Amino acid sequence: MIVDVHGHTVAPAEMYEYQAKLFARRSPFRGPKISDDQLEAKLAGHLALLDSGQIDVQFISPRPYTMMHSLFGADVVRSWTTYVNDIIHRQVGLHPDRFRGVAGLPQFRVTDLGPAIAELERTVTDLGFVGCLLNPDPCEGDGTSVPGLGDRYWYPLYEKLCELDVPALIHSASCSSPRESYSLHFINEESIAVLGLVNSQVFDDFPTLKVVVAHGGGAIPYQLGRFRAGGLKSGQVDFTVRLRRLWFDTVLYSADGLELLFKVVGPDRCLFGTEAPGTGAAVDPATGLSLDDLKPVIDGLSTITDDDRRLIFEENARAVYGRAFS
Amino acid sequence: MIVDVHGHTVAPAEMYEYQAKLFARRSPFRGPKISDDQLEAKLAGHLALLDSGQIDVQFISPRPYTMMHSLFGADVVRSWTTYVNDIIHRQVGLHPDRFRGVAGLPQFRVTDLGPAIAELERTVTDLGFVGCLLNPDPCEGDGTSVPGLGDRYWYPLYEKLCELDVPALIHSASCSSPRESYSLHFINEESIAVLGLVNSQVFDDFPTLKVVVAHGGGAIPYQLGRFRAGGLKSGQVDFTVRLRRLWFDTVLYSADGLELLFKVVGPDRCLFGTEAPGTGAAVDPATGLSLDDLKPVIDGLSTITDDDRRLIFEENARAVYGRAFS
Amino acid sequence: MIVDVHGHTVAPAEMYEYQAKLFARRSPFRGPKISDDQLEAKLAGHLALLDSGQIDVQFISPRPYTMMHSLFGADVVRSWTTYVNDIIHRQVGLHPDRFRGVAGLPQFRVTDLGPAIAELERTVTDLGFVGCLLNPDPCEGDGTSVPGLGDRYWYPLYEKLCELDVPALIHSASCSSPRESYSLHFINEESIAVLGLVNSQVFDDFPTLKVVVAHGGGAIPYQLGRFRAGGLKSGQVDFTVRLRRLWFDTVLYSADGLELLFKVVGPDRCLFGTEAPGTGAAVDPATGLSLDDLKPVIDGLSTITDDDRRLIFEENARAVYGRAFS
Amino acid sequence: MIVDVHGHTVAPAEMYEYQAKLFARRSPFRGPKISDDQLEAKLAGHLALLDSGQIDVQFISPRPYTMMHSLFGADVVRSWTTYVNDIIHRQVGLHPDRFRGVAGLPQFRVTDLGPAIAELERTVTDLGFVGCLLNPDPCEGDGTSVPGLGDRYWYPLYEKLCELDVPALIHSASCSSPRESYSLHFINEESIAVLGLVNSQVFDDFPTLKVVVAHGGGAIPYQLGRFRAGGLKSGQVDFTVRLRRLWFDTVLYSADGLELLFKVVGPDRCLFGTEAPGTGAAVDPATGLSLDDLKPVIDGLSTITDDDRRLIFEENARAVYGRAFS
Amino acid sequence: MIVDVHGHTVAPAEMYEYQAKLFARRSPFRGPKISDDQLEAKLAGHLALLDSGQIDVQFISPRPYTMMHSLFGADVVRSWTTYVNDIIHRQVGLHPDRFRGVAGLPQFRVTDLGPAIAELERTVTDLGFVGCLLNPDPCEGDGTSVPGLGDRYWYPLYEKLCELDVPALIHSASCSSPRESYSLHFINEESIAVLGLVNSQVFDDFPTLKVVVAHGGGAIPYQLGRFRAGGLKSGQVDFTVRLRRLWFDTVLYSADGLELLFKVVGPDRCLFGTEAPGTGAAVDPATGLSLDDLKPVIDGLSTITDDDRRLIFEENARAVYGRAFS
Amino acid sequence: MIVDVHGHTVAPAEMYEYQAKLFARRSPFRGPKISDDQLEAKLAGHLALLDSGQIDVQFISPRPYTMMHSLFGADVVRSWTTYVNDIIHRQVGLHPDRFRGVAGLPQFRVTDLGPAIAELERTVTDLGFVGCLLNPDPCEGDGTSVPGLGDRYWYPLYEKLCELDVPALIHSASCSSPRESYSLHFINEESIAVLGLVNSQVFDDFPTLKVVVAHGGGAIPYQLGRFRAGGLKSGQVDFTVRLRRLWFDTVLYSADGLELLFKVVGPDRCLFGTEAPGTGAAVDPATGLSLDDLKPVIDGLSTITDDDRRLIFEENARAVYGRAFS
Repeated sequence: MIVDVHGHTVAPAEMYEYQAKLFARRSPFRGPKISDDQLEAKLAGHLALLDSGQIDVQFISPRPYTMMHSLFGADVVRSWTTYVNDIIHRQVGLHPDRFRGVAGLPQFRVTDLGPAIAELERTVTDLGFVGCLLNPDPCEGDGTSVPGLGDRYWYPLYEKLCELDVPALIHSASCSSPRESYSLHFINEESIAVLGLVNSQVFDDFPTLKVVVAHGGGAIPYQLGRFRAGGLKSGQVDFTVRLRRLWFDTVLYSADGLELLFKVVGPDRCLFGTEAPGTGAAVDPATGLSLDDLKPVIDGLSTITDDDRRLIFEENARAVYGRAFS
Repeated sequence: MIVDVHGHTVAPAEMYEYQAKLFARRSPFRGPKISDDQLEAKLAGHLALLDSGQIDVQFISPRPYTMMHSLFGADVVRSWTTYVNDIIHRQVGLHPDRFRGVAGLPQFRVTDLGPAIAELERTVTDLGFVGCLLNPDPCEGDGTSVPGLGDRYWYPLYEKLCELDVPALIHSASCSSPRESYSLHFINEESIAVLGLVNSQVFDDFPTLKVVVAHGGGAIPYQLGRFRAGGLKSGQVDFTVRLRRLWFDTVLYSADGLELLFKVVGPDRCLFGTEAPGTGAAVDPATGLSLDDLKPVIDGLSTITDDDRRLIFEENARAVYGRAFS
Repeated sequence: MIVDVHGHTVAPAEMYEYQAKLFARRSPFRGPKISDDQLEAKLAGHLALLDSGQIDVQFISPRPYTMMHSLFGADVVRSWTTYVNDIIHRQVGLHPDRFRGVAGLPQFRVTDLGPAIAELERTVTDLGFVGCLLNPDPCEGDGTSVPGLGDRYWYPLYEKLCELDVPALIHSASCSSPRESYSLHFINEESIAVLGLVNSQVFDDFPTLKVVVAHGGGAIPYQLGRFRAGGLKSGQVDFTVRLRRLWFDTVLYSADGLELLFKVVGPDRCLFGTEAPGTGAAVDPATGLSLDDLKPVIDGLSTITDDDRRLIFEENARAVYGRAFS
Repeated sequence: MIVDVHGHTVAPAEMYEYQAKLFARRSPFRGPKISDDQLEAKLAGHLALLDSGQIDVQFISPRPYTMMHSLFGADVVRSWTTYVNDIIHRQVGLHPDRFRGVAGLPQFRVTDLGPAIAELERTVTDLGFVGCLLNPDPCEGDGTSVPGLGDRYWYPLYEKLCELDVPALIHSASCSSPRESYSLHFINEESIAVLGLVNSQVFDDFPTLKVVVAHGGGAIPYQLGRFRAGGLKSGQVDFTVRLRRLWFDTVLYSADGLELLFKVVGPDRCLFGTEAPGTGAAVDPATGLSLDDLKPVIDGLSTITDDDRRLIFEENARAVYGRAFS
Repeated sequence: MIVDVHGHTVAPAEMYEYQAKLFARRSPFRGPKISDDQLEAKLAGHLALLDSGQIDVQFISPRPYTMMHSLFGADVVRSWTTYVNDIIHRQVGLHPDRFRGVAGLPQFRVTDLGPAIAELERTVTDLGFVGCLLNPDPCEGDGTSVPGLGDRYWYPLYEKLCELDVPALIHSASCSSPRESYSLHFINEESIAVLGLVNSQVFDDFPTLKVVVAHGGGAIPYQLGRFRAGGLKSGQVDFTVRLRRLWFDTVLYSADGLELLFKVVGPDRCLFGTEAPGTGAAVDPATGLSLDDLKPVIDGLSTITDDDRRLIFEENARAVYGRAFS
Repeated sequence: MIVDVHGHTVAPAEMYEYQAKLFARRSPFRGPKISDDQLEAKLAGHLALLDSGQIDVQFISPRPYTMMHSLFGADVVRSWTTYVNDIIHRQVGLHPDRFRGVAGLPQFRVTDLGPAIAELERTVTDLGFVGCLLNPDPCEGDGTSVPGLGDRYWYPLYEKLCELDVPALIHSASCSSPRESYSLHFINEESIAVLGLVNSQVFDDFPTLKVVVAHGGGAIPYQLGRFRAGGLKSGQVDFTVRLRRLWFDTVLYSADGLELLFKVVGPDRCLFGTEAPGTGAAVDPATGLSLDDLKPVIDGLSTITDDDRRLIFEENARAVYGRAFS
């Protein structure tokens, strides 16, 4: 079975019309009713893509760059987030063999995590979701100081993740900096998140916490030596070892990158992910394949074994996302 | 000959005492006289390190995290920067066979680049420097909006670089964000710089401009596919091709990272660099060597040829830093 | 002929999905193609409403509360505004007997009015639009200081309006104040606009300028005495006279309000408007009619004559919007 | 008996000299002693005006635009407010048959309402005042976010008003916006206050609370339909009904406005007010009367009965301001 | 003849009532007419004080702490300042043998000095004033960065002072810092002003510029050694010599202070001043005299000669204020 | 015995290199080890200066302008301050007959005084320090509002000073204002501190509190009359009497200033201080002595007695700094 842990909902335009009007009103109101037919019309293409990509099950979450975690107040974010999670719940319900739900959390700047924790609980307990996104920069790149992921600020959320036994996928949202696209902000925030966690007490304090870092861990596997050096100088456990407290998805659209990732963190810490359809949906003229068609790429790597592939494609996902296949 | 294009000055404590007092006064004043003996006392260790690292010539610049580009006004920065450049000039003069000077520029937040351009001219023309550092984030991570490197804001500097025929090494300074160390900020800023340049008109407008990206280009070679996708969708020249308008140094402290770098951008775009002594000065217990002892690492790579090595160790440096060996 | 000068476009969800993604990206990109069928599907209900409301021709503009004049930069606003104006242009083209286009302007906070003027020219000259909206508070209620409409800041726009001989309809956008809905902000901004214009030199400097104030002029006709008093004390021309330099629409959803309006400013300064479908789309249980079904209400007033009604329903619109029926 | 519920103190220049020096010092100090003769010299004109306006009793409060609720700190405001209230107390004491005291409250931006509540208690209990002013925008139009009057922020004050059984007159102070005079700000703030209260739980939570809205309720009676529509759509009690939880004064200087007010909210919710001498003190050349000479205007209206007039001129004032005639 | 160069206007309460209402309106309006009788009523006490203090002629200017240089915009400051200067002009006109006018300048924060220069010209040329106040901190202690008096920012004003041949008296206005009274702020600003001028090129660039420092020069004569030291180290002309480019008034309410002043700067650089009536108007129980009754104090000093006294009481004033006795 | 209560540490460049790197990193790290030899090398000159200045014992504290109380967060300040205090402790240990330690406190802007109190306790109890510096403006002249020294904000620190029975020396740090040097800021802050204390309840609430004001009390002794006047008007105890609750050091580099100081506050409230080597280290060409060579200056004053001199040079220091000679 091929499990893609990193996908996002493909939803009707009416959902985004609702978002646009939330922005315009700057205050919450009830979202529109969307019919099953409207949902299915959009899902048709999504499912065809999964088929062509040889993906049996995909975990879908809100499209991160639309999460608006820094705009117009906590109540607007909560209205939007719960609405999107409910749509995802219905999509999973329509195709329970192909999808699992991963929650967006109504984070808002550096405020109380209460609403995020409540929504995590609601989506996992009531809607059967199997994990959540965690945005390490709910200020969305405007430079406001947010506590790093190693800070006790985040502990109530980590506690709830452990209690519910679901993983968080580190994934930032949009980016307000005029010189940094949201897509690059994902990468930079992942590097910040990895160091924030690995250089902290978090995994000592929460030994059962499971964190997956999106997009192959930002820059860290590539820049490994730089951060090993710091640890060696201060006499800490080798950075390479500490890094393996985390999990990583394979949303890297090049064979070279994937090879490096598997070498550095080990296939036993990697989960297959494509984010399809999304950023990688572009045909490589050299291969005629879409860049996010990663199953053949990973199949083609000579540096890993078939056992490794089983870990990557399925078994690690089963281990990390315990609720997905129970 | 082994040429290390990325080193920083090792200077007496009195230089930093001067900096501390500049901070304390918040206004410029004349720096202390430092004797040749004081300089040599510090250089002794530095030269020994070059010897043990098999480095024939190192290009030295101000230590970037001390450049204070966001603090206390342009005039303080200028006093400090010119002082440090003058120290470097004297160090090069003491050991002309082992060092070349690379200038720090007195950038200050998002102000007029005039002082930076003037200092570039002074150091190259009067002091014989062979290039400069370019900080893409003179606000040092406080989130203030700076124009990206593709913006016309930077054109007067590019023009001067072309006129003088010297390259800029992209290297940020310190970082005020409490969750991002200056060391990681280097990496994230390099990624932002690469995309800012490669997705712009800069190299069309300045065909002779030479830009070296420090630390192996941040996250970009590893995350290549992600950014290729964007270009493919919009019908631009392949990102891989555009990426090769830039040069990259080898300040990556792992063989895996170096291998990926050479594969992705090609040995003909890479310049040997160690930043020694600096971040990488930590002994790897597995090898007994310092992590920044990169000559043996590159010698040991099976994925490149001896011709590649000649490019990396010397010939690219001669091509890019034309003034260094004239 | 019944001419409704105050309507807004009824557009497919895909248009607002585009807006949501502009917000999410914080930077401009090309909007989606929307087919004629998609447009007509939405227009069917709109046209039925016009029929039931006895409206022969309605002037349609962007829905003001979605104009986002204070968010994410001038270039995002311009992308969004031109997209919406183009949609309106196509809707008018599909039903040239029922619609006329009124442009939204890409205002952005207190910046250069150049883009707004350029879009006014484009929509009138190239797209055949007959007027525009003018937002007196492009900061959308956040308290930022904007020059009042009597300030010379606005003169380049007034000049272009005169040159093109089209009127502006005063209509604010959204409102960021947590205690003021966008709907009430419309009213308060209209009061500010009326006083700003009437107490200024604008109509002396631009004798041919035509300005229509939406929603019956905010509070001013009701509070007339208060503002007459100020003028009487300072020896100005009576406020009642100066007030009649402006035009007013009838978007007031009560007979009492309409009666007062006609009495105070005169039927010869009023233009029929309903904003249908919009705020007034609620059935009054007392009458069984929608509150924005204003034709019967005006027909039923005993305080005006049939000649007055002709002015209100058609002739004033022909006089003010000279391009609409040429 | 003709009772004017909306008048302001006419005080000697020395009182305002004290205010100017409070501004200049930015810190509190004891105000000057003003003799009875000085007070009477100013009151002579005031009383003559009441006589000529046929006003038997006027309720006088601080002149609102001088209340300085956003300047120089809570302690300066408290010094000033208590000083003015004490002056009013003396004026009432000099002419107990002609005046009643209405307190200004030492509100200061969005701080603790404690000082305001204490001064309310002092003025009612110790000085025999019969009500107070309530400024819904103590930030005086600078756009700072203040909780709306429906917010629990205001509940301690509402509680005290109920306990003391005195009404609050909604009346804002000055306005810092360069495009909105304090006089128009009164009107806009009244509209915001009406909606904030009427769309809230306040009157459910404080069934005995009595609130009078100055100047005929801002724009709301005129714009009634607009706000009815919102309520109808969401299934609330008709806005017209909810609006009648409030009381309104007649400080509207036109017969048309007064007629509309009486029609929309009913004479049984209106209290005679003139604000004389004040904004309306300008002679209408058409009538030869001052615009604030409202007794003859209301006498002349054909749309209300003599019973209505009794309510407006006296009985409603007795009902609302229970302490005024006890 | 005893000439007091440092006095302030004593004006009727109506002038300050006007100021209070300017504050309240935040926009300019025409000030009240004040009769000669009103002026004389206030001047009676003022003149009696001059008589008892043996002062023949006093130079009067606006009361500095009321100048409001940081509040509500340049136009409000201009209205207020010109009004006060006009009152002073009338007071001088009523008693031309006892008073001379010294202008307040409509400075406003760090804006264009144009209005200040224009008012200087108006008061000197049209009203016959003999000098002006110069506020080195028009931001009134809120910490906003203002260029020091040595900065070229002030040169247009210095140029006009030279052209008109009138001196400026350094005197700050109010102070917004909660821990610094306006009275102490005067002193601190004078110290800043002295150093700013004496350590600059101003007197080289304007050799005929005449500057009087109020209150005996702040702290500088007392702290002389400290600032001499700085100059000695950098090889400048002795600070004591440079200090004598300035003039100083005697508004120091102790014999000890006066003695020090005369010793340090010399009687030939000092001008008699009392600021009476003002801060010093308090009877010293030890002497039974008011602290600002300085004539006897200076007469009683044994450390100066009668020739010195003539300089201090009259001749220096004649030299510096050339227009006062022409 | 000659006791100099006001000296600062003379430390190796390595200490300031550490400070520069703390600035650069913006986060704390362990400081460098400095050997006794390095310390002694610097102390040699310092001791020679004491000898030539006839100083037997000097109290040394951190150099105030380098205390960085407004930069980069409380934890950086704490690292720096404790490091410097530890260096001082070692210097005192090397020369226990010549030095006593006076602590710098890790103040940081307007935050919790906890760390400052803890460091006070540590240095006095563990390191044997005899007093501390107290910076009344930890925002270092940027205009941020700090509570004055009379405010209860400072009470926890006063309590600890009383409990430990050590005095505080009022001494500000650097200054960010471009028009005020740190050296003048010392003086101005001392004036603010004196008035803040003397006009407060502090000495009533802490009768045993001992406060020494550096540099002869800023401007206050010179400007005494001005502040006496305020107190006389309000009926307070004479300012001269209240002023003597404080102690003053003699760091005034002129005989005139010293004479005034002794006259105004009395020799029984003055402690000998030189701040040598420091600001006063400049040779006066008139005397051939350094300006901070104050022993001969005080010896030469005819206005005080030998008994006074004993108080100033030794006995007051013994009384105030009880721990220094126990």
